[in-house]
Amino acid sequence: MLGVGLIGGSIGLGARSRAGAHVTGYDPRERALSAALELGAIDRAASSVAEAVSDAEAVFVAVPVGSLADNVRAALAAAPADCVVSDVGSAKRAVVAATGDERFIGGHPLAGAEKTGVQHARADLFDGATWYLTPGTAGAGPAATGAGGERSRALRARLTGIVTALGACPVEIDPLAHDRLMARVSHLPHVLANVLVDSAAALLAGGSQDTAGVRFAAGPSFRDATRVAGASSAIWVDIYTANADALTEAIDDAVRRLDEVRGALARADSQALTEWNERAAVLRAQLAAAACAEPGAAGALADGPPDS
Amino acid sequence: MLGVGLIGGSIGLGARSRAGAHVTGYDPRERALSAALELGAIDRAASSVAEAVSDAEAVFVAVPVGSLADNVRAALAAAPADCVVSDVGSAKRAVVAATGDERFIGGHPLAGAEKTGVQHARADLFDGATWYLTPGTAGAGPAATGAGGERSRALRARLTGIVTALGACPVEIDPLAHDRLMARVSHLPHVLANVLVDSAAALLAGGSQDTAGVRFAAGPSFRDATRVAGASSAIWVDIYTANADALTEAIDDAVRRLDEVRGALARADSQALTEWNERAAVLRAQLAAAACAEPGAAGALADGPPDS
Repeated sequence: MLGVGLIGGSIGLGARSRAGAHVTGYDPRERALSAALELGAIDRAASSVAEAVSDAEAVFVAVPVGSLADNVRAALAAAPADCVVSDVGSAKRAVVAATGDERFIGGHPLAGAEKTGVQHARADLFDGATWYLTPGTAGAGPAATGAGGERSRALRARLTGIVTALGACPVEIDPLAHDRLMARVSHLPHVLANVLVDSAAALLAGGSQDTAGVRFAAGPSFRDATRVAGASSAIWVDIYTANADALTEAIDDAVRRLDEVRGALARADSQALTEWNERAAVLRAQLAAAACAEPGAAGALADGPPDS
Repeated sequence: MLGVGLIGGSIGLGARSRAGAHVTGYDPRERALSAALELGAIDRAASSVAEAVSDAEAVFVAVPVGSLADNVRAALAAAPADCVVSDVGSAKRAVVAATGDERFIGGHPLAGAEKTGVQHARADLFDGATWYLTPGTAGAGPAATGAGGERSRALRARLTGIVTALGACPVEIDPLAHDRLMARVSHLPHVLANVLVDSAAALLAGGSQDTAGVRFAAGPSFRDATRVAGASSAIWVDIYTANADALTEAIDDAVRRLDEVRGALARADSQALTEWNERAAVLRAQLAAAACAEPGAAGALADGPPDS
């Protein structure tokens, strides 16, 4: 285990308690590493990447997206020839492209928690969560692509087995498809949460006579839509920049759609607004039905109150 | 009580159980009216607006925003001279402007539930919720403005007392300030929820080779940000059109902010993205602290997981 924060720590807890694994951890943050040991997220603290992975069957690299490639390469350099190396980053193309080794299979569990750090790690964090995997994309040469060679198949089966033991739903995906999908269903929602908070605060601070002295209040929709505003910069700035092109495409798409809504409002076109709103209801139900069916982090879209 | 849906029904339940009020209800939807009677949301079903309000001390008009003005005028025409008439609409300027009577005080409770209809009404729906009131804005002449006359003060005190008995936090606000604030903290989040759903569905349906056959999954941020997508068209299309100018202003503001993010992404400007993200964290904490402190629908902004 390289990196023992919330995600790395939760993998360690789950792998130990559910798969009987022996987990060696390394993290340059000494305090995090000793906390992981105390909390039982790892069996042993290593003093270097090489020491942590030298006799591993599987390595998870759970560090911020900006440090993924370096850490994955260091793990591959020191890990045994039959060790599978994976990561948990929210953007997949960059790390996959930087890693020309069939032992690497990119990964991304769709799970999180309100607080970062190993002290918030939980063995059940991934229960029911989709865990994307990008097998067969990092290798050079035919042995690593498609069906792959025997070693590839064995490494893939081992990783899938661990992910399943952690309670997650492994789902294979192309790295570009992953990044484009995440831009729209994760990175854009985080951007919009920040925009909503900025926009509300600007109105209240704007010194306009209309809103001066207004006591701020908001209904459930604002609370939920801004829940992730200002999420950890150490994690999210890396994600935004690693997936900048797909996120920009998602922003442009959202702006085009906002412009259409703006047009319908300008025309007082109730029919267009109704059709648009009804379509959203249908699509939301379809997306909820298509989502990973298990309960938990990536389960069906939850119901909840609109404002009134 | 004019209109016995979720909100009207919840006011009826709360007024009866918490304030010992005798509640007469009217709704042109006969089935809703008899359900309200069966569920104890009203004591008596009237067969017309006039019959419902003729001996009332207070009238709440709880109908969709597009029908508010007509219903408020009908209530004022039939209600006693010392009866206070209020509404629960999510846009306030139009109904206030259409109502030249100091007996009318606009209102808007920031509460809702996932399902509409009197069968989902609850006496505790407003516990801790901010309930905006717009006193002194509907009358013609000095008696109705500012401090107002003695009658105005009495009607205002009566309405405030009822709102408090229902468990809510009454907060006075100017109708324009209300509509501009709601555009940013409620109507825009509902628009963005629809946009997010549309955008994700379009990517999956787009027939692009990258994303064809991708199994849809999303983390907690998408689930929360799209919870209100496709909320009742009967309610929301009226709100969007009644508050079209303020909502358009909010959309334009959001688009400007998205364009700034786009610029930072294009420049790979990690410092600007970090500052923007850190600012959002601070502003979100400030807004949460400024929000109505009681628990419940309008309480502090909840914590919850970002994606990873």
